[in-house]
Amino acid sequence: MLPSPIHDQVQAIAADHSSGATDLTLRAADAFAALTWSKDLRQPFASAVRELAAALIDAQPSMAPIFNLANAILLAMDQVDDAFAQRERVHEVCQESLTGLRQAGPIIAKYAQELIPPKGVVMTHSHSSSVRETLLAAHATGQIFSVICTESRPVGEGVYLAQRLAQAGIDVRLVIDAAMYHYLPGVQVIMVGADQLAPNGLVNKMGTALLAVAAQTWQTPIYSLCSTQKFLPRPAGDRTQKLQPGAEIVDREITGVRIENFYFDSTPLERLTGIVCEEGILDPAAARQRLLGQTIHPYLAD
Amino acid sequence: MLPSPIHDQVQAIAADHSSGATDLTLRAADAFAALTWSKDLRQPFASAVRELAAALIDAQPSMAPIFNLANAILLAMDQVDDAFAQRERVHEVCQESLTGLRQAGPIIAKYAQELIPPKGVVMTHSHSSSVRETLLAAHATGQIFSVICTESRPVGEGVYLAQRLAQAGIDVRLVIDAAMYHYLPGVQVIMVGADQLAPNGLVNKMGTALLAVAAQTWQTPIYSLCSTQKFLPRPAGDRTQKLQPGAEIVDREITGVRIENFYFDSTPLERLTGIVCEEGILDPAAARQRLLGQTIHPYLAD
Repeated sequence: MLPSPIHDQVQAIAADHSSGATDLTLRAADAFAALTWSKDLRQPFASAVRELAAALIDAQPSMAPIFNLANAILLAMDQVDDAFAQRERVHEVCQESLTGLRQAGPIIAKYAQELIPPKGVVMTHSHSSSVRETLLAAHATGQIFSVICTESRPVGEGVYLAQRLAQAGIDVRLVIDAAMYHYLPGVQVIMVGADQLAPNGLVNKMGTALLAVAAQTWQTPIYSLCSTQKFLPRPAGDRTQKLQPGAEIVDREITGVRIENFYFDSTPLERLTGIVCEEGILDPAAARQRLLGQTIHPYLAD
Repeated sequence: MLPSPIHDQVQAIAADHSSGATDLTLRAADAFAALTWSKDLRQPFASAVRELAAALIDAQPSMAPIFNLANAILLAMDQVDDAFAQRERVHEVCQESLTGLRQAGPIIAKYAQELIPPKGVVMTHSHSSSVRETLLAAHATGQIFSVICTESRPVGEGVYLAQRLAQAGIDVRLVIDAAMYHYLPGVQVIMVGADQLAPNGLVNKMGTALLAVAAQTWQTPIYSLCSTQKFLPRPAGDRTQKLQPGAEIVDREITGVRIENFYFDSTPLERLTGIVCEEGILDPAAARQRLLGQTIHPYLAD
């Protein structure tokens, strides 16, 4: 049994469906920190850490950075014996993980910027903060290009991204999702974000897999911008299978019609030209190798 | 110069952007009929008919049934000499054309019904009356199947189709356009309508070409239900290039963002499994042959 304040922290993380990966991982790190300070443990420290690790992964099963933080903590703890050194290691790993999350964005943007040819047209789907920061940085350094955003139904994140880019002075067109193929002949590079990258595919906004298939027809390069913290070294779970409210698509009941609203689809790694992470641009084979090369602590292997 | 009441009829047809092919063709036939009765011609009858034919095609350049009606009238007139026989021929061709348009629907539905396997899942995009009548007829004759409708942004015709099918008791799911690929592994046959079928491609609702590309990945058969009256024996014009109001996509101005709204895309015939017309199910090669085999009157050749 975890101390009840920490248990509450886990519950709050589980109930949070709106925060991004960085925020949630920050709060997971807070929970680990709280555990190191707790005077109220009814079990050995190492065993409490394992329990918390499992609880946090359960709380946000699709959030790869939390899995990676928990996994790194368990692996680090195995290297030391006494409880004081273990507490130290937990703090160090949390620090490294958060620093990594924060630093990944600008490094990824730097690599991704180079993929935009002069006067090129970039297509993107949904609203990835990595893609946004790349485009803003490229514009700020004087690169000339234009962007096509798909509206990204049902919530329309693409509309918001288009607005943000236009505010910065970038030449932006907004089109319906179904037009992605129609525009591809005039597109030089496609950039999308990532919810997570797993050996069985890139989990990202519904329509990403469709865009990747369309891209192959015109041999348009398509990259996922994805920090290694989002690399999930085991197959992605059933996140793509969670039904969201149908009212987001049509905000009235239609008798007899099942409105099915899934947020995510899965794109086989081989359909991507590359994965831009803070270690560089990995081709699908290298990304798979990187994923499968990650050590999973036996306690988390399932 | 055409008599002014007939000129007005042509103007009205040109200004009509909401009526379907059948209605518009009916009114084009009315204009030809009015010409046969006109006592006010300032030129030989045959020459007035040619002028009207060209004016009607100009009025609705993308409306293949009007082109085909005008073309058939000019070809028929060449077979007779005197003005009385020419008037007779105009009436006959109009009659044949309208009968053909009316009869095509049920015949196409009969052929298309057979493409639905028992307990199969049919996917469709947008709202084609031919597809709707096929599904309703199949359901009425006791076939068991379910349907996936894409919402078909920006206007959402797919929502309306889903509602119509559900009202008849058909099992229907409604999904966002970007989900078309995600659902394909569970789909046995795709049916779409047609705005026109030309040698350079099927012109239909934006997203049809995307769906055809996605279908190839899973080798899902995809058929266009298209009466021969919609066969355009010359390359389709620039209908796909006409910009529609951006407010249909986002109903507010977004400073600096160009909202591009095209209704149609073009699917190469070879990406279709077949074209279901009232003459049967044509494979792409047969459809192309049928298209190129149609005689175009020299006056309309461009």
